[in-house]
Amino acid sequence: MRDLSRDVSFLSINTATLKTLTLRQAVETLSRHGIRAIAPSRDRLAECGVPEAARILADHGMTVTGLCRGGMFSAGDGASDDNRRAVEEAAAIGAQCLVLVVGGLAAGSRDIAGARRIVRDGIAALLPHARQAGVKLAVEPLHPMYAADRACVNTLAQANDLCDALGPGLGIAVDVYHTWWDPCLKAEIARAGTHKGRILAFHICDWLVPTRDLLLDRGMMGDGIIDIRCIRGWVEAAGYRGHCEVEIFSAENWWKREADDVLRICVERYQGRC
Amino acid sequence: MRDLSRDVSFLSINTATLKTLTLRQAVETLSRHGIRAIAPSRDRLAECGVPEAARILADHGMTVTGLCRGGMFSAGDGASDDNRRAVEEAAAIGAQCLVLVVGGLAAGSRDIAGARRIVRDGIAALLPHARQAGVKLAVEPLHPMYAADRACVNTLAQANDLCDALGPGLGIAVDVYHTWWDPCLKAEIARAGTHKGRILAFHICDWLVPTRDLLLDRGMMGDGIIDIRCIRGWVEAAGYRGHCEVEIFSAENWWKREADDVLRICVERYQGRC
Repeated sequence: MRDLSRDVSFLSINTATLKTLTLRQAVETLSRHGIRAIAPSRDRLAECGVPEAARILADHGMTVTGLCRGGMFSAGDGASDDNRRAVEEAAAIGAQCLVLVVGGLAAGSRDIAGARRIVRDGIAALLPHARQAGVKLAVEPLHPMYAADRACVNTLAQANDLCDALGPGLGIAVDVYHTWWDPCLKAEIARAGTHKGRILAFHICDWLVPTRDLLLDRGMMGDGIIDIRCIRGWVEAAGYRGHCEVEIFSAENWWKREADDVLRICVERYQGRC
Repeated sequence: MRDLSRDVSFLSINTATLKTLTLRQAVETLSRHGIRAIAPSRDRLAECGVPEAARILADHGMTVTGLCRGGMFSAGDGASDDNRRAVEEAAAIGAQCLVLVVGGLAAGSRDIAGARRIVRDGIAALLPHARQAGVKLAVEPLHPMYAADRACVNTLAQANDLCDALGPGLGIAVDVYHTWWDPCLKAEIARAGTHKGRILAFHICDWLVPTRDLLLDRGMMGDGIIDIRCIRGWVEAAGYRGHCEVEIFSAENWWKREADDVLRICVERYQGRC
């Protein structure tokens, strides 16, 4: 396993962790902390425009570990156009992948199997465009508590099955928050590892006990019960050599703190607890 | 599939659904609605004492579809004695099974695989006592959002594996709330069905969108997005002929309503939406 304790070479920060900052503010703050990798959300790009965002990122030498997000394939006809735009934005900022939060049940539907077919077909339809643009698509299995309304891909096994079925250009974002509970996690990470480059991103934060909100109560690494280092070991054994991307949604805690404090603690925990 | 629309022969109510009632009040209210099956929690028994509880249930001709609950094997040394008492209570009231909520991580632990070993060993140690008492143990896979603090058995596959490993006397409680999202649900219900009597209970309620609380925001059947009838079809195709047990934790809605209203709507939804 890589030794992360000495620097921040493989640390990336998702802009969701620094909720209140614009892209420029986020990039400048990260730079002050020596952090050279970021994963922006599309709304941060939209605020300044994609060309300006690309300039800001390039001027600061930022590695873009992912663009958040495409997907929502069950949302209806608009999804297709929006996903093509997301691919173009990912290409414009040189993102290592476009993260796909695939969507849950269609409005009024109780057909989870049907939703999963819609997702498979939606990714299949988007893939040629992504390949042409040179953008990798990273399907992100989300925790089963989001199966109804955010993502009906809930296990790494499902994500591996999609990659097997749909071929090159599709990979996986492994997020410890969404997957730590899965009894098949180790085996499915190893399965992903048999395909070079399939694991496109590794997201970290922590599961708090108790968790007070389904969406906005994620913890800082070390504050919860996920054995992050263990999972990182599995991911690295599977060949992953990319960044650890910190993605913390935390309305009542981390989003209320100063960005400099959040980053200082991110670095400390990344080096000591991951 | 059985036709449930004509009566309430296969309807059971978990006392958690009628949060504010004593056991006697719950039994009398159910009887007024023609409902002849109940699943009490142990605290309802403790309030009146187990012998009195057994008399109340017998006097009203109640089928006891389960006793909630034993388990919590990772809670430390006390768990073993308490689980033996739970078995004795289940025997005393003639419960069709003792439901096991197996427990999550041990205090201070991040070792989910280790927790699962503790659970397996705990069930193995309890089984001889349960067999001797003539009490079936029903392991209940809980939703992965409870993996840390309530149950590290989170899929029907895990429950089937436990049953395969530990042998007669152990079965499964299938709860649609905990399992509806699982891509392997249909296959694992069918797998359970290859062992006669393995499915010991079938619990129903609904998953609301949005869900506002991890614990206490379950929905009435028909108010959410679970295709309950589909899952009941799978369970019956697997040979299950027992009751549908309504278990609704709902601090802000159903627990605030009159028990008669709750039961009237339970019956209506059971007959029309399940």
